[in-house]
Amino acid sequence: MKHEILVSFGRKVQMRRKELKLSQEQLAEEAGLHRTYIGMIERAEKNVTLVNIEKIAKALKISIPELF
Amino acid sequence: MKHEILVSFGRKVQMRRKELKLSQEQLAEEAGLHRTYIGMIERAEKNVTLVNIEKIAKALKISIPELF
Repeated sequence: MKHEILVSFGRKVQMRRKELKLSQEQLAEEAGLHRTYIGMIERAEKNVTLVNIEKIAKALKISIPELF
Repeated sequence: MKHEILVSFGRKVQMRRKELKLSQEQLAEEAGLHRTYIGMIERAEKNVTLVNIEKIAKALKISIPELF
């Protein structure tokens, strides 16, 4: 059973990424993360760390609270 | 060099914990985490994961965005 917090985080990352018309690869590059990592985040398969949450928020040009 | 985001997160956890007059042990028990883990979070020695951020926020009776 997936953690609800990871599911909702993944959904918000995906929503914002699509708003910016970025592919997972482009977001990964912008955030300095591996391409497959972004896919795993969006599918709630990764218990993301705070340092990476910050990298993703910066790459999505939003603040961390906006991802929750 | 410690990640600034971990330093600021640790500071907010400690501030809110003291507001509630909880010891690190009491917060750890409330959050279902190890006693030393809370100390490490407050000293920015741990790259905390999202599942644990949620546990800490719930134990501190605040929402996740309020910790950022």
